[in-house]
Amino acid sequence: MQYQLDQAKEILRRTPATLNALLSDLPNDWVLSNEGPDTWSPYDVIGHLIEGEETDWIPRARIILEQGEERPFDKFDRFAMFEKSSGKSLLELLAEFEKLRGESLRQLDELKLTPELLQKQGLHPVLGVVTLSQLLSAWVVHDLGHIRQIVRVMATQYREAIGPWTEYLTIVN
Amino acid sequence: MQYQLDQAKEILRRTPATLNALLSDLPNDWVLSNEGPDTWSPYDVIGHLIEGEETDWIPRARIILEQGEERPFDKFDRFAMFEKSSGKSLLELLAEFEKLRGESLRQLDELKLTPELLQKQGLHPVLGVVTLSQLLSAWVVHDLGHIRQIVRVMATQYREAIGPWTEYLTIVN
Repeated sequence: MQYQLDQAKEILRRTPATLNALLSDLPNDWVLSNEGPDTWSPYDVIGHLIEGEETDWIPRARIILEQGEERPFDKFDRFAMFEKSSGKSLLELLAEFEKLRGESLRQLDELKLTPELLQKQGLHPVLGVVTLSQLLSAWVVHDLGHIRQIVRVMATQYREAIGPWTEYLTIVN
Repeated sequence: MQYQLDQAKEILRRTPATLNALLSDLPNDWVLSNEGPDTWSPYDVIGHLIEGEETDWIPRARIILEQGEERPFDKFDRFAMFEKSSGKSLLELLAEFEKLRGESLRQLDELKLTPELLQKQGLHPVLGVVTLSQLLSAWVVHDLGHIRQIVRVMATQYREAIGPWTEYLTIVN
């Protein structure tokens, strides 16, 4: 599929509701367990998604539109949420993400992007030259990738419990 | 985590709402695209989950409780949904799955399972001897595995669109 703004927004606007349906009021054993040292729990992932709304997607889109390749993106801090989420409940984080995502989508609309603007280029500090279209596509895939991570982390908690079904249910491997 | 009935039901009862949030009213390009020949679209996966409610989880639990290892489970038809879903919209399938899952959970409650009953054994036609606890754990992991599959199939549609981000967003590989 080619990137299409309207189609992409259909995913972006669903992510908060999907995460709410999947996680809200779930027992802590599901929400706070990770896959071992230096891995993330579903709780950690929500904090990471919040950080993305605040410092990654729309801010980088603005850099591309306003400064192009002259000004590389700031590096994204993949661990900022460990401090910022501290003391907050999962429900608070889910509500915060929902609010920020709504604001991001409003800002996205205000950019009034055209096919020409979507081809504008920016400079990623590691990946090099990227287009606005690629950045906005990555936003969608990033959402889906972290939903995938959350369900994998949860499934992994039952690796022993399913016994011989590990052969079929490859998500636990 | 050890299997605990109440904890497991928390996942099972959320799956229909998660799938509704993720998929209902989504454009067909997201819902009907698969990953190539002999792979499943999100639409196909919902049909497969319906088939599981009708012929797999609760029916097999009953076989274990009523007949134990004497009567192997029927083989699960992983392709039945291609015929059974035919002509139905995704919204119809999502509603059907939600209804069937609600019925499955009511039946699960009616079984009044105890820790002793959860250790009862049955005979899987390929995997051999399994416990009821393992079957019910597999039900949870099966849900999570298919949510993972759905988001992966959707993300894959943007493999080209994200350009150099393929390096970071490994869900598309």
